[in-house]
Amino acid sequence: MRDTSLRSTSRFVCTGGSTTRMENFAKFVLKELSASGLQLDLPTAVENLCRTDRYVMYKVGPVLSVNHGIGMPSLSTVLNEVIKLLRYAGCTDVVFIRLGTSGGVGVEPGTVVIADEAVNHEFRPVYQLPVVGQLRSWPTPLSGEVVEGLKSCCLPEDGYDVVINKTMATDDFYEGQARLDGAFCDYTEEDKLAYLKEAYDNGVRNIDKEATCLAAMVNRANFKAGVACVALLNRLEGDDYTASPETSRIWEQRPPVLVVRYILKRLREMQGQ
Amino acid sequence: MRDTSLRSTSRFVCTGGSTTRMENFAKFVLKELSASGLQLDLPTAVENLCRTDRYVMYKVGPVLSVNHGIGMPSLSTVLNEVIKLLRYAGCTDVVFIRLGTSGGVGVEPGTVVIADEAVNHEFRPVYQLPVVGQLRSWPTPLSGEVVEGLKSCCLPEDGYDVVINKTMATDDFYEGQARLDGAFCDYTEEDKLAYLKEAYDNGVRNIDKEATCLAAMVNRANFKAGVACVALLNRLEGDDYTASPETSRIWEQRPPVLVVRYILKRLREMQGQ
Repeated sequence: MRDTSLRSTSRFVCTGGSTTRMENFAKFVLKELSASGLQLDLPTAVENLCRTDRYVMYKVGPVLSVNHGIGMPSLSTVLNEVIKLLRYAGCTDVVFIRLGTSGGVGVEPGTVVIADEAVNHEFRPVYQLPVVGQLRSWPTPLSGEVVEGLKSCCLPEDGYDVVINKTMATDDFYEGQARLDGAFCDYTEEDKLAYLKEAYDNGVRNIDKEATCLAAMVNRANFKAGVACVALLNRLEGDDYTASPETSRIWEQRPPVLVVRYILKRLREMQGQ
Repeated sequence: MRDTSLRSTSRFVCTGGSTTRMENFAKFVLKELSASGLQLDLPTAVENLCRTDRYVMYKVGPVLSVNHGIGMPSLSTVLNEVIKLLRYAGCTDVVFIRLGTSGGVGVEPGTVVIADEAVNHEFRPVYQLPVVGQLRSWPTPLSGEVVEGLKSCCLPEDGYDVVINKTMATDDFYEGQARLDGAFCDYTEEDKLAYLKEAYDNGVRNIDKEATCLAAMVNRANFKAGVACVALLNRLEGDDYTASPETSRIWEQRPPVLVVRYILKRLREMQGQ
Protein backbone atom coordinates (compact mmCIF):
# COMPACT_ATOMS: atom_id res chain seq x y z
CA MET A 1 0.00 0.00 0.00
CA ARG A 2 3.07 2.33 -0.04
CA ASP A 3 3.74 2.18 -3.77
CA THR A 4 3.59 5.95 -4.11
CA SER A 5 4.49 5.93 -7.79
CA LEU A 6 1.20 4.20 -8.45
CA ARG A 7 -0.96 6.73 -6.68
CA SER A 8 0.78 10.08 -6.65
CA THR A 9 -1.41 11.27 -9.54
CA SER A 10 -4.69 10.76 -7.66
CA ARG A 11 -6.88 13.84 -7.85
CA PHE A 12 -10.38 12.44 -7.34
CA VAL A 13 -11.60 9.86 -4.83
CA CYS A 14 -15.06 8.64 -5.78
CA THR A 15 -16.89 6.50 -3.26
CA GLY A 16 -20.21 4.77 -2.85
CA GLY A 17 -21.60 1.89 -0.83
CA SER A 18 -21.59 -1.05 -3.20
CA THR A 19 -18.59 -3.04 -4.47
CA THR A 20 -20.25 -3.74 -7.82
CA ARG A 21 -21.29 -0.15 -8.35
CA MET A 22 -17.77 1.14 -7.69
CA GLU A 23 -16.28 -1.48 -10.02
CA ASN A 24 -18.75 -0.41 -12.71
CA PHE A 25 -17.93 3.23 -11.99
CA ALA A 26 -14.21 2.50 -12.48
CA LYS A 27 -14.97 0.85 -15.83
CA PHE A 28 -17.12 3.82 -16.86
CA VAL A 29 -14.35 6.26 -15.85
CA LEU A 30 -11.81 4.24 -17.86
CA LYS A 31 -14.06 4.31 -20.94
CA GLU A 32 -14.75 8.04 -20.71
CA LEU A 33 -11.17 9.10 -19.90
CA SER A 34 -9.82 6.87 -22.69
CA ALA A 35 -12.13 8.60 -25.18
CA SER A 36 -11.38 12.10 -23.84
CA GLY A 37 -8.25 12.92 -25.80
CA LEU A 38 -6.59 14.02 -22.54
CA GLN A 39 -2.97 13.11 -21.78
CA LEU A 40 -3.44 10.56 -19.03
CA ASP A 41 -1.62 7.45 -17.87
CA LEU A 42 -4.51 4.97 -17.96
CA PRO A 43 -4.60 1.23 -17.33
CA THR A 44 -5.93 -1.08 -20.04
CA ALA A 45 -8.42 -2.62 -17.60
CA VAL A 46 -9.59 -1.95 -14.07
CA GLU A 47 -8.10 -4.01 -11.26
CA ASN A 48 -9.10 -4.19 -7.58
CA LEU A 49 -6.04 -3.07 -5.57
CA CYS A 50 -7.30 -4.38 -2.19
CA ARG A 51 -6.12 -7.73 -0.90
CA THR A 52 -8.92 -8.25 1.64
CA ASP A 53 -12.70 -8.31 1.08
CA ARG A 54 -13.38 -5.36 3.43
CA TYR A 55 -13.66 -2.98 0.49
CA VAL A 56 -12.58 -2.62 -3.16
CA MET A 57 -10.40 0.10 -4.69
CA TYR A 58 -9.65 0.79 -8.35
CA LYS A 59 -7.26 3.40 -9.75
CA VAL A 60 -8.01 4.78 -13.19
CA GLY A 61 -5.44 7.49 -13.89
CA PRO A 62 -6.29 10.41 -11.59
CA VAL A 63 -9.43 8.72 -10.22
CA LEU A 64 -9.68 6.32 -7.27
CA SER A 65 -12.98 4.42 -7.10
CA VAL A 66 -13.52 2.93 -3.63
CA ASN A 67 -16.57 1.40 -2.01
CA HIS A 68 -17.37 2.24 1.60
CA GLY A 69 -20.02 -0.31 2.60
CA ILE A 70 -22.99 0.79 4.71
CA GLY A 71 -22.78 3.58 7.27
CA MET A 72 -20.27 5.88 8.93
CA PRO A 73 -18.20 3.36 10.92
CA SER A 74 -17.54 1.52 7.67
CA LEU A 75 -16.85 4.75 5.75
CA SER A 76 -14.58 6.14 8.48
CA THR A 77 -12.45 2.99 8.42
CA VAL A 78 -12.06 3.26 4.63
CA LEU A 79 -11.38 7.03 4.74
CA ASN A 80 -8.68 6.66 7.40
CA GLU A 81 -6.86 4.25 5.10
CA VAL A 82 -7.39 6.17 1.84
CA ILE A 83 -6.34 9.49 3.44
CA LYS A 84 -3.17 7.88 4.81
CA LEU A 85 -2.46 6.46 1.35
CA LEU A 86 -2.90 9.85 -0.33
CA ARG A 87 -0.56 11.45 2.21
CA TYR A 88 2.10 8.78 1.68
CA ALA A 89 1.75 9.45 -2.06
CA GLY A 90 2.18 13.19 -1.55
CA CYS A 91 -1.25 14.12 -2.95
CA THR A 92 -2.27 17.58 -1.76
CA ASP A 93 -5.19 18.65 -3.96
CA VAL A 94 -7.81 15.92 -3.91
CA VAL A 95 -11.58 16.05 -4.31
CA PHE A 96 -13.66 13.33 -2.61
CA ILE A 97 -17.12 12.73 -4.03
CA ARG A 98 -19.69 10.35 -2.62
CA LEU A 99 -22.01 9.24 -5.39
CA GLY A 100 -24.77 6.84 -4.72
CA THR A 101 -28.39 6.30 -3.87
CA SER A 102 -30.53 7.83 -1.15
CA GLY A 103 -34.08 8.37 0.01
CA GLY A 104 -35.53 11.64 -1.22
CA VAL A 105 -37.52 14.03 0.97
CA GLY A 106 -40.10 15.99 -1.02
CA VAL A 107 -38.42 15.42 -4.37
CA GLU A 108 -39.51 13.36 -7.39
CA PRO A 109 -37.95 9.88 -7.48
CA GLY A 110 -35.00 10.00 -9.89
CA THR A 111 -33.96 13.49 -8.78
CA VAL A 112 -30.23 14.03 -8.19
CA VAL A 113 -29.48 15.88 -4.96
CA ILE A 114 -26.16 17.75 -4.87
CA ALA A 115 -25.52 18.44 -1.20
CA ASP A 116 -24.48 21.95 -0.22
CA GLU A 117 -24.53 20.92 3.44
CA ALA A 118 -24.32 17.59 5.28
CA VAL A 119 -26.42 17.49 8.45
CA ASN A 120 -27.16 15.01 11.24
CA HIS A 121 -30.50 13.72 12.54
CA GLU A 122 -31.12 17.07 14.26
CA PHE A 123 -30.41 18.92 10.98
CA ARG A 124 -27.13 20.26 12.40
CA PRO A 125 -23.90 20.29 10.35
CA VAL A 126 -21.87 18.12 12.71
CA TYR A 127 -20.29 14.68 12.79
CA GLN A 128 -19.83 13.16 16.24
CA LEU A 129 -17.67 10.27 17.40
CA PRO A 130 -16.51 9.18 20.86
CA VAL A 131 -12.69 9.36 20.97
CA VAL A 132 -10.80 7.98 23.99
CA GLY A 133 -14.14 7.95 25.79
CA GLN A 134 -15.15 11.58 25.05
CA LEU A 135 -17.79 12.58 22.50
CA ARG A 136 -16.11 14.79 19.90
CA SER A 137 -17.82 16.97 17.27
CA TRP A 138 -16.49 18.21 13.93
CA PRO A 139 -18.05 20.56 11.36
CA THR A 140 -19.19 19.06 8.06
CA PRO A 141 -18.39 21.58 5.33
CA LEU A 142 -18.80 20.59 1.70
CA SER A 143 -16.82 22.39 -0.97
CA GLY A 144 -18.65 25.25 -2.67
CA GLU A 145 -16.32 24.75 -5.64
CA VAL A 146 -17.37 21.12 -5.98
CA VAL A 147 -21.07 22.01 -5.64
CA GLU A 148 -20.76 24.69 -8.34
CA GLY A 149 -18.64 22.40 -10.50
CA LEU A 150 -21.18 19.58 -10.35
CA LYS A 151 -24.05 22.01 -10.95
CA SER A 152 -22.32 23.41 -14.03
CA CYS A 153 -22.19 19.89 -15.49
CA CYS A 154 -25.98 19.40 -15.38
CA LEU A 155 -27.52 19.82 -18.82
CA PRO A 156 -31.16 20.75 -19.60
CA GLU A 157 -31.35 17.80 -22.02
CA ASP A 158 -30.59 15.36 -19.18
CA GLY A 159 -34.33 15.40 -18.56
CA TYR A 160 -34.31 15.00 -14.77
CA ASP A 161 -34.41 17.33 -11.78
CA VAL A 162 -31.29 18.36 -9.91
CA VAL A 163 -31.68 20.08 -6.56
CA ILE A 164 -28.95 21.64 -4.43
CA ASN A 165 -29.74 21.46 -0.75
CA LYS A 166 -28.99 19.48 2.41
CA THR A 167 -28.27 15.76 2.74
CA MET A 168 -29.07 14.24 6.14
CA ALA A 169 -26.94 11.32 7.35
CA THR A 170 -28.35 8.74 9.79
CA ASP A 171 -26.97 5.71 11.64
CA ASP A 172 -29.55 3.17 10.47
CA PHE A 173 -31.65 2.52 7.36
CA TYR A 174 -34.92 1.63 9.12
CA GLU A 175 -35.74 3.30 12.46
CA GLY A 176 -32.87 5.74 11.97
CA GLN A 177 -34.65 7.04 8.86
CA ALA A 178 -38.14 6.83 10.40
CA ARG A 179 -39.19 3.93 8.19
CA LEU A 180 -42.36 2.05 9.07
CA ASP A 181 -41.33 -1.23 7.41
CA GLY A 182 -38.35 -2.38 9.49
CA ALA A 183 -38.35 -5.15 12.10
CA PHE A 184 -39.25 -2.62 14.81
CA CYS A 185 -41.50 0.43 14.80
CA ASP A 186 -43.05 1.98 17.91
CA TYR A 187 -43.88 5.33 16.31
CA THR A 188 -46.79 6.23 14.05
CA GLU A 189 -46.98 7.31 10.43
CA GLU A 190 -47.83 10.79 11.78
CA ASP A 191 -44.60 10.82 13.84
CA LYS A 192 -42.66 9.80 10.76
CA LEU A 193 -44.21 12.42 8.50
CA ALA A 194 -43.85 15.16 11.12
CA TYR A 195 -40.11 14.33 11.37
CA LEU A 196 -39.55 14.16 7.62
CA LYS A 197 -41.49 17.40 7.06
CA GLU A 198 -39.37 19.07 9.74
CA ALA A 199 -36.32 17.80 7.86
CA TYR A 200 -37.74 19.22 4.61
CA ASP A 201 -38.44 22.57 6.29
CA ASN A 202 -34.81 22.60 7.42
CA GLY A 203 -33.64 22.17 3.83
CA VAL A 204 -33.09 18.40 3.78
CA ARG A 205 -33.85 16.90 0.36
CA ASN A 206 -32.40 13.43 0.82
CA ILE A 207 -31.19 11.01 3.48
CA ASP A 208 -28.12 8.79 3.38
CA LYS A 209 -25.95 7.10 6.01
CA GLU A 210 -22.56 8.71 5.33
CA ALA A 211 -22.60 12.39 4.28
CA THR A 212 -21.61 14.03 7.60
CA CYS A 213 -18.74 11.60 8.22
CA LEU A 214 -17.40 12.13 4.70
CA ALA A 215 -17.60 15.91 4.96
CA ALA A 216 -15.97 16.07 8.40
CA MET A 217 -13.10 13.67 7.71
CA VAL A 218 -12.24 15.07 4.29
CA ASN A 219 -12.25 18.59 5.75
CA ARG A 220 -9.96 17.52 8.60
CA ALA A 221 -7.58 16.10 5.99
CA ASN A 222 -7.59 19.46 4.11
CA PHE A 223 -9.18 17.98 1.02
CA LYS A 224 -12.47 18.99 -0.63
CA ALA A 225 -15.71 16.98 -0.43
CA GLY A 226 -18.92 16.73 -2.40
CA VAL A 227 -21.98 14.44 -2.29
CA ALA A 228 -24.21 13.75 -5.30
CA CYS A 229 -26.84 11.05 -4.80
CA VAL A 230 -29.95 10.11 -6.68
CA ALA A 231 -33.19 9.84 -4.69
CA LEU A 232 -34.73 6.43 -5.45
CA LEU A 233 -38.03 7.34 -3.78
CA ASN A 234 -39.81 10.22 -2.08
CA ARG A 235 -40.06 9.32 1.60
CA LEU A 236 -43.04 11.67 2.05
CA GLU A 237 -44.95 9.28 -0.24
CA GLY A 238 -43.84 5.94 1.23
CA ASP A 239 -40.99 3.68 2.37
CA ASP A 240 -40.93 1.16 -0.46
CA TYR A 241 -39.00 1.35 -3.71
CA THR A 242 -41.70 1.26 -6.40
CA ALA A 243 -39.52 1.90 -9.46
CA SER A 244 -38.75 -1.13 -11.63
CA PRO A 245 -35.22 -2.55 -11.47
CA GLU A 246 -34.64 -1.17 -14.98
CA THR A 247 -35.76 2.33 -14.00
CA SER A 248 -33.65 2.18 -10.83
CA ARG A 249 -30.61 1.24 -12.93
CA ILE A 250 -31.19 4.27 -15.18
CA TRP A 251 -31.53 6.54 -12.14
CA GLU A 252 -28.44 5.06 -10.45
CA GLN A 253 -26.39 5.97 -13.52
CA ARG A 254 -27.19 9.70 -13.14
CA PRO A 255 -24.64 10.58 -10.41
CA PRO A 256 -21.81 8.65 -12.18
CA VAL A 257 -22.51 10.47 -15.48
CA LEU A 258 -22.55 13.83 -13.70
CA VAL A 259 -19.39 13.11 -11.70
CA VAL A 260 -17.44 11.95 -14.77
CA ARG A 261 -18.44 15.12 -16.63
CA TYR A 262 -17.14 17.11 -13.66
CA ILE A 263 -13.87 15.15 -13.57
CA LEU A 264 -13.35 15.65 -17.32
CA LYS A 265 -14.06 19.36 -16.99
CA ARG A 266 -11.59 19.71 -14.11
CA LEU A 267 -8.92 17.68 -15.95
CA ARG A 268 -9.36 19.83 -19.09
CA GLU A 269 -8.91 22.96 -16.95
CA MET A 270 -5.76 21.46 -15.37
CA GLN A 271 -4.36 20.60 -18.81
CA GLY A 272 -5.25 24.08 -20.09
CA GLN A 273 -7.75 22.82 -22.64
CA MET B 1 -37.41 -13.46 0.44
CA ARG B 2 -40.80 -14.83 1.59
CA ASP B 3 -40.15 -18.47 0.78
CA THR B 4 -40.94 -19.59 4.30
CA SER B 5 -40.58 -23.27 3.52
CA LEU B 6 -36.92 -22.63 2.88
CA ARG B 7 -36.23 -20.94 6.17
CA SER B 8 -38.72 -22.12 8.75
CA THR B 9 -36.12 -24.48 10.21
CA SER B 10 -33.62 -21.74 11.02
CA ARG B 11 -32.38 -22.01 14.60
CA PHE B 12 -29.00 -20.29 14.50
CA VAL B 13 -28.01 -17.04 12.80
CA CYS B 14 -24.24 -16.72 12.66
CA THR B 15 -22.83 -13.40 11.57
CA GLY B 16 -19.47 -11.72 11.07
CA GLY B 17 -18.10 -8.83 9.06
CA SER B 18 -16.54 -10.40 6.01
CA THR B 19 -18.33 -11.96 3.01
CA THR B 20 -15.57 -14.50 2.45
CA ARG B 21 -15.40 -15.51 6.10
CA MET B 22 -19.16 -16.13 6.25
CA GLU B 23 -19.05 -18.12 3.01
CA ASN B 24 -16.24 -20.22 4.46
CA PHE B 25 -18.19 -20.58 7.69
CA ALA B 26 -21.21 -21.86 5.75
CA LYS B 27 -18.99 -24.42 4.00
CA PHE B 28 -17.51 -25.49 7.35
CA VAL B 29 -21.00 -25.83 8.88
CA LEU B 30 -22.11 -27.94 5.91
CA LYS B 31 -19.09 -30.24 6.29
CA GLU B 32 -19.54 -30.67 10.04
CA LEU B 33 -23.33 -31.09 9.98
CA SER B 34 -23.06 -33.58 7.10
CA ALA B 35 -20.64 -35.68 9.15
CA SER B 36 -22.67 -35.41 12.36
CA GLY B 37 -25.12 -38.27 11.87
CA LEU B 38 -27.97 -35.91 12.78
CA GLN B 39 -31.26 -35.96 10.86
CA LEU B 40 -31.01 -32.69 8.97
CA ASP B 41 -32.21 -31.40 5.62
CA LEU B 42 -28.91 -30.17 4.22
CA PRO B 43 -28.01 -28.73 0.82
CA THR B 44 -25.29 -30.38 -1.27
CA ALA B 45 -23.42 -27.08 -1.59
CA VAL B 46 -23.70 -23.60 -0.11
CA GLU B 47 -25.40 -20.90 -2.17
CA ASN B 48 -25.63 -17.16 -1.55
CA LEU B 49 -29.35 -16.34 -1.21
CA CYS B 50 -28.94 -12.55 -1.59
CA ARG B 51 -29.52 -10.93 -4.96
CA THR B 52 -27.68 -7.67 -4.21
CA ASP B 53 -24.06 -7.16 -3.12
CA ARG B 54 -24.98 -5.44 0.17
CA TYR B 55 -24.42 -8.66 2.12
CA VAL B 56 -24.31 -12.43 1.64
CA MET B 57 -26.52 -15.05 3.29
CA TYR B 58 -26.21 -18.84 3.22
CA LYS B 59 -28.63 -21.37 4.71
CA VAL B 60 -27.20 -24.71 5.80
CA GLY B 61 -30.03 -26.67 7.40
CA PRO B 62 -30.80 -24.91 10.71
CA VAL B 63 -27.94 -22.42 10.34
CA LEU B 64 -28.02 -19.06 8.55
CA SER B 65 -24.58 -17.58 7.86
CA VAL B 66 -24.81 -13.86 7.09
CA ASN B 67 -22.15 -11.19 6.84
CA HIS B 68 -22.81 -7.78 8.36
CA GLY B 69 -20.04 -5.56 6.96
CA ILE B 70 -18.32 -3.03 9.21
CA GLY B 71 -20.09 -1.28 12.08
CA MET B 72 -23.51 -0.93 13.66
CA PRO B 73 -25.37 0.94 10.88
CA SER B 74 -24.42 -1.88 8.52
CA LEU B 75 -25.29 -4.58 11.08
CA SER B 76 -28.61 -2.94 12.00
CA THR B 77 -29.68 -2.87 8.36
CA VAL B 78 -28.88 -6.58 7.99
CA LEU B 79 -30.54 -7.50 11.32
CA ASN B 80 -33.75 -5.66 10.44
CA GLU B 81 -34.03 -7.76 7.31
CA VAL B 82 -32.99 -11.09 8.86
CA ILE B 83 -35.34 -10.60 11.83
CA LYS B 84 -38.25 -9.82 9.47
CA LEU B 85 -37.38 -12.92 7.46
CA LEU B 86 -37.36 -15.14 10.57
CA ARG B 87 -40.73 -13.73 11.64
CA TYR B 88 -42.26 -14.37 8.20
CA ALA B 89 -40.90 -17.90 8.45
CA GLY B 90 -42.47 -18.38 11.89
CA CYS B 91 -39.17 -18.99 13.70
CA THR B 92 -39.54 -18.37 17.41
CA ASP B 93 -36.47 -19.88 19.09
CA VAL B 94 -33.38 -18.54 17.38
CA VAL B 95 -29.87 -17.92 18.66
CA PHE B 96 -27.80 -15.18 17.01
CA ILE B 97 -24.04 -15.44 17.37
CA ARG B 98 -21.53 -12.90 16.15
CA LEU B 99 -18.22 -14.62 15.51
CA GLY B 100 -15.29 -12.72 14.23
CA THR B 101 -12.14 -10.84 15.00
CA SER B 102 -11.49 -8.07 17.49
CA GLY B 103 -8.79 -6.15 19.28
CA GLY B 104 -7.94 -7.63 22.68
CA VAL B 105 -7.48 -5.57 25.84
CA GLY B 106 -5.03 -7.16 28.26
CA VAL B 107 -5.32 -10.65 26.74
CA GLU B 108 -2.82 -12.72 24.76
CA PRO B 109 -3.27 -12.46 20.99
CA GLY B 110 -5.19 -15.52 19.84
CA THR B 111 -7.43 -15.55 22.92
CA VAL B 112 -11.14 -16.13 22.30
CA VAL B 113 -13.36 -13.71 24.21
CA ILE B 114 -16.89 -14.92 24.91
CA ALA B 115 -18.85 -11.80 25.82
CA ASP B 116 -21.04 -11.93 28.90
CA GLU B 117 -21.92 -8.27 28.41
CA ALA B 118 -21.80 -5.87 25.48
CA VAL B 119 -20.89 -2.31 26.46
CA ASN B 120 -20.47 1.05 24.74
CA HIS B 121 -17.49 3.47 24.77
CA GLU B 122 -18.40 4.49 28.35
CA PHE B 123 -18.47 0.81 29.42
CA ARG B 124 -22.27 0.96 29.80
CA PRO B 125 -24.55 -1.84 28.52
CA VAL B 126 -26.57 0.32 26.13
CA TYR B 127 -27.11 0.74 22.40
CA GLN B 128 -28.24 4.19 21.29
CA LEU B 129 -29.80 5.35 18.04
CA PRO B 130 -31.68 8.51 17.08
CA VAL B 131 -35.23 7.54 16.02
CA VAL B 132 -37.55 10.18 14.52
CA GLY B 133 -35.08 12.75 15.80
CA GLN B 134 -34.90 11.52 19.42
CA LEU B 135 -31.96 9.64 20.89
CA ARG B 136 -33.23 6.24 22.08
CA SER B 137 -31.41 3.75 24.34
CA TRP B 138 -31.87 0.01 24.64
CA PRO B 139 -30.26 -2.51 27.00
CA THR B 140 -27.76 -4.97 25.55
CA PRO B 141 -28.27 -8.30 27.31
CA LEU B 142 -26.47 -11.36 26.04
CA SER B 143 -27.88 -14.80 26.74
CA GLY B 144 -26.43 -16.54 29.78
CA GLU B 145 -27.46 -19.84 28.18
CA VAL B 146 -25.42 -19.06 25.08
CA VAL B 147 -22.41 -17.95 27.15
CA GLU B 148 -22.56 -21.16 29.20
CA GLY B 149 -23.15 -23.24 26.09
CA LEU B 150 -20.14 -21.79 24.29
CA LYS B 151 -18.00 -22.13 27.42
CA SER B 152 -18.96 -25.79 27.77
CA CYS B 153 -17.65 -26.42 24.25
CA CYS B 154 -14.12 -25.19 25.03
CA LEU B 155 -11.71 -28.10 25.46
CA PRO B 156 -8.43 -28.07 27.39
CA GLU B 157 -6.69 -29.62 24.36
CA ASP B 158 -7.62 -26.61 22.21
CA GLY B 159 -4.46 -25.03 23.55
CA TYR B 160 -5.58 -21.42 23.67
CA ASP B 161 -7.06 -19.09 26.27
CA VAL B 162 -10.79 -18.40 26.48
CA VAL B 163 -11.98 -15.55 28.66
CA ILE B 164 -15.55 -14.63 29.53
CA ASN B 165 -15.98 -10.91 30.07
CA LYS B 166 -17.15 -7.72 28.37
CA THR B 167 -16.91 -6.77 24.69
CA MET B 168 -16.88 -3.04 23.98
CA ALA B 169 -18.41 -1.83 20.71
CA THR B 170 -17.23 1.41 19.06
CA ASP B 171 -18.27 3.44 16.01
CA ASP B 172 -14.87 3.61 14.32
CA PHE B 173 -11.79 1.41 13.98
CA TYR B 174 -9.14 4.13 14.43
CA GLU B 175 -9.92 7.11 16.69
CA GLY B 176 -13.04 5.32 17.98
CA GLN B 177 -10.76 2.59 19.37
CA ALA B 178 -8.03 5.03 20.51
CA ARG B 179 -5.59 3.89 17.84
CA LEU B 180 -2.49 5.98 17.23
CA ASP B 181 -2.02 4.88 13.61
CA GLY B 182 -5.08 6.28 11.82
CA ALA B 183 -5.17 9.34 9.57
CA PHE B 184 -5.93 11.54 12.57
CA CYS B 185 -4.71 11.46 16.17
CA ASP B 186 -4.71 14.45 18.52
CA TYR B 187 -4.34 12.43 21.73
CA THR B 188 -1.22 10.90 23.23
CA GLU B 189 -0.17 7.32 23.83
CA GLU B 190 -0.76 8.04 27.53
CA ASP B 191 -4.38 9.10 26.79
CA LYS B 192 -4.86 5.92 24.79
CA LEU B 193 -3.41 3.64 27.46
CA ALA B 194 -5.32 5.39 30.24
CA TYR B 195 -8.57 4.80 28.30
CA LEU B 196 -7.82 1.18 27.46
CA LYS B 197 -6.76 0.46 31.06
CA GLU B 198 -10.00 2.03 32.29
CA ALA B 199 -11.81 -0.27 29.86
CA TYR B 200 -9.86 -3.26 31.24
CA ASP B 201 -10.65 -2.23 34.83
CA ASN B 202 -14.33 -2.15 33.82
CA GLY B 203 -14.11 -5.73 32.58
CA VAL B 204 -13.58 -5.10 28.86
CA ARG B 205 -11.39 -7.77 27.26
CA ASN B 206 -11.91 -6.96 23.59
CA ILE B 207 -13.23 -4.24 21.27
CA ASP B 208 -15.38 -4.67 18.19
CA LYS B 209 -17.76 -2.40 16.26
CA GLU B 210 -21.03 -4.32 16.57
CA ALA B 211 -21.65 -6.11 19.90
CA THR B 212 -24.05 -3.63 21.55
CA CYS B 213 -26.22 -3.27 18.43
CA LEU B 214 -26.43 -7.06 18.04
CA ALA B 215 -27.36 -7.60 21.69
CA ALA B 216 -29.98 -4.84 21.75
CA MET B 217 -31.72 -5.72 18.49
CA VAL B 218 -31.77 -9.48 19.08
CA ASN B 219 -33.18 -8.88 22.57
CA ARG B 220 -35.89 -6.58 21.18
CA ALA B 221 -36.82 -9.36 18.76
CA ASN B 222 -37.10 -11.85 21.66
CA PHE B 223 -34.28 -14.00 20.38
CA LYS B 224 -31.02 -14.89 22.17
CA ALA B 225 -27.62 -13.39 21.37
CA GLY B 226 -24.00 -14.31 21.92
CA VAL B 227 -20.64 -12.89 20.80
CA ALA B 228 -17.46 -14.95 20.47
CA CYS B 229 -14.51 -13.18 18.86
CA VAL B 230 -10.83 -13.91 18.72
CA ALA B 231 -8.47 -11.11 19.77
CA LEU B 232 -5.92 -10.65 16.99
CA LEU B 233 -3.70 -8.40 19.11
CA ASN B 234 -3.41 -6.97 22.61
CA ARG B 235 -4.12 -3.25 22.31
CA LEU B 236 -2.21 -2.56 25.54
CA GLU B 237 0.91 -3.66 23.62
CA GLY B 238 0.31 -1.83 20.32
CA ASP B 239 -2.03 -1.02 17.43
CA ASP B 240 -0.49 -3.15 14.68
CA TYR B 241 -1.24 -6.75 13.82
CA THR B 242 2.09 -8.51 14.25
CA ALA B 243 0.93 -12.11 13.75
CA SER B 244 1.75 -13.68 10.39
CA PRO B 245 -1.12 -14.15 7.92
CA GLU B 246 -0.87 -17.91 8.58
CA THR B 247 -1.11 -17.46 12.35
CA SER B 248 -4.01 -15.03 11.94
CA ARG B 249 -5.84 -17.60 9.81
CA ILE B 250 -5.40 -20.24 12.54
CA TRP B 251 -6.67 -17.79 15.18
CA GLU B 252 -9.64 -16.71 13.02
CA GLN B 253 -10.74 -20.34 12.81
CA ARG B 254 -11.14 -20.60 16.61
CA PRO B 255 -14.58 -18.92 16.96
CA PRO B 256 -16.05 -20.91 14.02
CA VAL B 257 -14.84 -24.22 15.51
CA LEU B 258 -16.29 -23.28 18.90
CA VAL B 259 -19.60 -22.11 17.48
CA VAL B 260 -20.05 -25.24 15.35
CA ARG B 261 -19.42 -27.43 18.41
CA TYR B 262 -22.07 -25.44 20.24
CA ILE B 263 -24.55 -25.79 17.36
CA LEU B 264 -23.95 -29.56 17.17
CA LYS B 265 -24.40 -29.88 20.93
CA ARG B 266 -27.67 -27.94 20.82
CA LEU B 267 -28.96 -29.91 17.82
CA ARG B 268 -28.14 -33.22 19.57
CA GLU B 269 -30.06 -32.02 22.64
CA MET B 270 -33.03 -31.05 20.43
CA GLN B 271 -33.00 -34.45 18.72
CA GLY B 272 -32.69 -36.19 22.10
CA GLN B 273 -29.26 -37.65 21.38
